[in-house]
Amino acid sequence: VEKGDADVNEGGAALIGLDWGTTSLRAYRVGRDGAVLDRRSREAGILKVERGDFAGALAAAAGDWLRAEPGLPVVAAGMVGSRQGWREVPYVPCPAGLAELAGALATVAGPDGRTVWLVPGLAHAAAGFPDVMRGEETQILGALATAPGDAPRCFVLPGTHSKWAWCARGRVERFATYMTGEVYDVLTRHSILGRLMAGDRGHDAQAYARGLARARASAGAPPGRLLHDLFSARTLGLTAEVPAEGLRSYLSGLLIGAEAAAALTDAPPDGVTILGADALSARYAEAIAAAGARAVVGDADAAARGLHAIARAAGLIEKEHGHG
Amino acid sequence: VEKGDADVNEGGAALIGLDWGTTSLRAYRVGRDGAVLDRRSREAGILKVERGDFAGALAAAAGDWLRAEPGLPVVAAGMVGSRQGWREVPYVPCPAGLAELAGALATVAGPDGRTVWLVPGLAHAAAGFPDVMRGEETQILGALATAPGDAPRCFVLPGTHSKWAWCARGRVERFATYMTGEVYDVLTRHSILGRLMAGDRGHDAQAYARGLARARASAGAPPGRLLHDLFSARTLGLTAEVPAEGLRSYLSGLLIGAEAAAALTDAPPDGVTILGADALSARYAEAIAAAGARAVVGDADAAARGLHAIARAAGLIEKEHGHG
Repeated sequence: VEKGDADVNEGGAALIGLDWGTTSLRAYRVGRDGAVLDRRSREAGILKVERGDFAGALAAAAGDWLRAEPGLPVVAAGMVGSRQGWREVPYVPCPAGLAELAGALATVAGPDGRTVWLVPGLAHAAAGFPDVMRGEETQILGALATAPGDAPRCFVLPGTHSKWAWCARGRVERFATYMTGEVYDVLTRHSILGRLMAGDRGHDAQAYARGLARARASAGAPPGRLLHDLFSARTLGLTAEVPAEGLRSYLSGLLIGAEAAAALTDAPPDGVTILGADALSARYAEAIAAAGARAVVGDADAAARGLHAIARAAGLIEKEHGHG
Repeated sequence: VEKGDADVNEGGAALIGLDWGTTSLRAYRVGRDGAVLDRRSREAGILKVERGDFAGALAAAAGDWLRAEPGLPVVAAGMVGSRQGWREVPYVPCPAGLAELAGALATVAGPDGRTVWLVPGLAHAAAGFPDVMRGEETQILGALATAPGDAPRCFVLPGTHSKWAWCARGRVERFATYMTGEVYDVLTRHSILGRLMAGDRGHDAQAYARGLARARASAGAPPGRLLHDLFSARTLGLTAEVPAEGLRSYLSGLLIGAEAAAALTDAPPDGVTILGADALSARYAEAIAAAGARAVVGDADAAARGLHAIARAAGLIEKEHGHG
């Protein structure tokens, strides 16, 4: 970035950041200090991009931003860097922080030949099989950039495939994926458990707490115990101990409670930072508390902050005037 | 049964037994000693019975047997005694054996007004939530009748919902359901794990053993660990460490191995008797051995023997001549 460009953007945007996942594309205009100046969300996840025309999809979502500020770097994280995305970017092994990710960015040609930088995902193998993430690493590094420090940190990113990550000295040291959201979804929609469930997906706090309690009571048993406890979401419905309208929340509590108890066998001293959507974050906070750990809800703009931190580490953004 | 009837059937059938489940109806002509004289299987499970005409469905499946031997008692076990079946028969609480089941038979009017006796299922509540079975209790009591004794016994009946039962002094003392088969099914057909799976469902012994090993390595972790380990069925496929054709067997080994390890935290000294179909029984035998217990495959005709033992306990069959 030449000085002239920087002057033009004084006080304006320093980056166009993209959090481009399987089902949605979130775009941000990010300021020099990492704050979000403008944002938009489109249902333009990589599975909806037609004929591999990612440049066209990006132009449709943020072409006006790109044309208005032709000097800004464009950085994208998430499944857009997967085999099914714009270009497959190899995973970076843990431990990894800003330096490792910034050093492994890949590029593709966007609208009007504009360079788009793709953030790699992370890989980790210590648990006996390879584990991977794409996109969550950027949120985690964004949250770390907001509150820097060397102390160990633990993050959870709830979702279809939840990610738990343990960090220290600004780097992700290890992480683990839990298929909790997807297991909930397929059991609710396709198994016998769904047949007794009534009503919409409104939250039933009492049933959810009962599911958490069931998970807590089983926390000393081996993993296969979950295959038994799942049956309680049927029999408690058959006996009307949990009302039909509460069975979804009960199952959710059972699964999230089991996830939290398993992840927190290595409980972090300073609690768990939750990075996710409001409603689900509240459920995870309750589950983490039930499992005996402290939970705090983290920065909702962690993705944008992470894209900014990675771009700066890659030399795509000059440091803010007057700040180290 | 009058003596005249008994003489007519000397050396012939003493019972028409029905193992009538959700998807199939198995009918047996059973001899005085409990041996199966004749058998047939129809895809006439209770979900396929139209307009609640169970008598008609029975006549279609075994009307010739009923007409040929009008003096024989007819006894049915399984989901035919459930709310969705012919008549709901209340569960009998554990511990329960032949006397408790025989004392709680219900009747319905079958073809030509013929009395059909329905065996109740079992209920158990010790694990923190109610658990239930219908049909398996009859197989278990049949297996116990084949090898009577007071020593503790453990049975597993693999299936969509596997049942593990602990017995002593001829009674089922407690049992637990594991939703292993259904979880395998919905994950294979409806989750992201199925997308990488290739080929038919042919067994891959190496991949299955690897799944068992994964379950064994995690046996010391809490139940939620399973939600993490499931992800290995994706990443080992992505990295081609398990071939696409082996991923179904890998997932099967992971789930059955987890089930066996959890059920066998209370390992029986004399091993586990498996009551089930040949192929699945072999998989369970391998999983049980991997979990450190002894497995034997039990009587394939346990259902017919159980129906016979219950009918005799109910006084519907005289004892065999010359046997106590």
